[in-house]
Amino acid sequence: MQLEEKKLSSQTLYSGKVVTLELSRVELPNKKEALREVVRHPGGAAVLLVNDGKILLERQFRFPYDKVIWEIPAGKLNRGEPPADAARRELEEETGYRAGKLERLVEVYPSPGYTDEIIYVFFSDDAEYVGTHLDEDEFVNARFVDIADCLGMIEDGQICDAKTIAAILKYVYDKNK
Amino acid sequence: MQLEEKKLSSQTLYSGKVVTLELSRVELPNKKEALREVVRHPGGAAVLLVNDGKILLERQFRFPYDKVIWEIPAGKLNRGEPPADAARRELEEETGYRAGKLERLVEVYPSPGYTDEIIYVFFSDDAEYVGTHLDEDEFVNARFVDIADCLGMIEDGQICDAKTIAAILKYVYDKNK
Repeated sequence: MQLEEKKLSSQTLYSGKVVTLELSRVELPNKKEALREVVRHPGGAAVLLVNDGKILLERQFRFPYDKVIWEIPAGKLNRGEPPADAARRELEEETGYRAGKLERLVEVYPSPGYTDEIIYVFFSDDAEYVGTHLDEDEFVNARFVDIADCLGMIEDGQICDAKTIAAILKYVYDKNK
Repeated sequence: MQLEEKKLSSQTLYSGKVVTLELSRVELPNKKEALREVVRHPGGAAVLLVNDGKILLERQFRFPYDKVIWEIPAGKLNRGEPPADAARRELEEETGYRAGKLERLVEVYPSPGYTDEIIYVFFSDDAEYVGTHLDEDEFVNARFVDIADCLGMIEDGQICDAKTIAAILKYVYDKNK
């Protein structure tokens, strides 16, 4: 079956600080036309930092869900910024840990039906504490959590964030291979 | 550290077929104000269907990435539809498999910085082939892939979709517990 769609036209409906919303007309494989709503996003980077059998997690309020959730340290890429640099920068800003060596862990497409975001997730077990320097408008609590507890928190739904679940389970899978 | 934000006002900037875009003003824990761009989404449901050591995957064109990617069968919730019903419906429509028993596998928040989507992922090893009934404007190829190959495809970046990575790794983790 032919799967590809062809873009016929596109307009930007909103251009914001985090997302840009585009509406495109496409030609489907059956030559009919359809509309596609796309959220453009600069992409993100995250770090699974492991130390002494524990994973560094953050508690952060997420406005779309109106609650505080658990995530690994992460943030948006600046324009042109290599993902590994963004991962280091966000880790240090938010948690105070400066990473040495980073390894690629996994890339994540969070919701491919409507967003083009890519989250680049790195692993490190090599970091030293140098002190946080959060933006004055950023509010994050970071703490190390036992890997077994992290797995239990995925099981019972306390950890729901996609990149965090993917990172933890990929790390555990790699370790047990 | 106080983490919660308080919504002061909110306006809908766009209301589309898949997403609604809202812009809200919030009060931060330090009493300053900030803007929050939120993509509202009805939520999704997905099924990891396993048969004889293979996982049912789909190839689907995803316009935001301008490419065909691998995913487990999934789709949007209809208004008021229980996630398990949506999971069954989408599985059958897209792949022709009618599921018997479904079990909760994991819930995924795809990108909590800007979307409120929740993806409910179910597991089933109990399904019979009854024939696809794709919408005329839906184009999907489904096939069973060995679990070992799925894991290799996560490792080498061929599988990037967040819910699919989370589902496969959660299933493999549960099985090996």
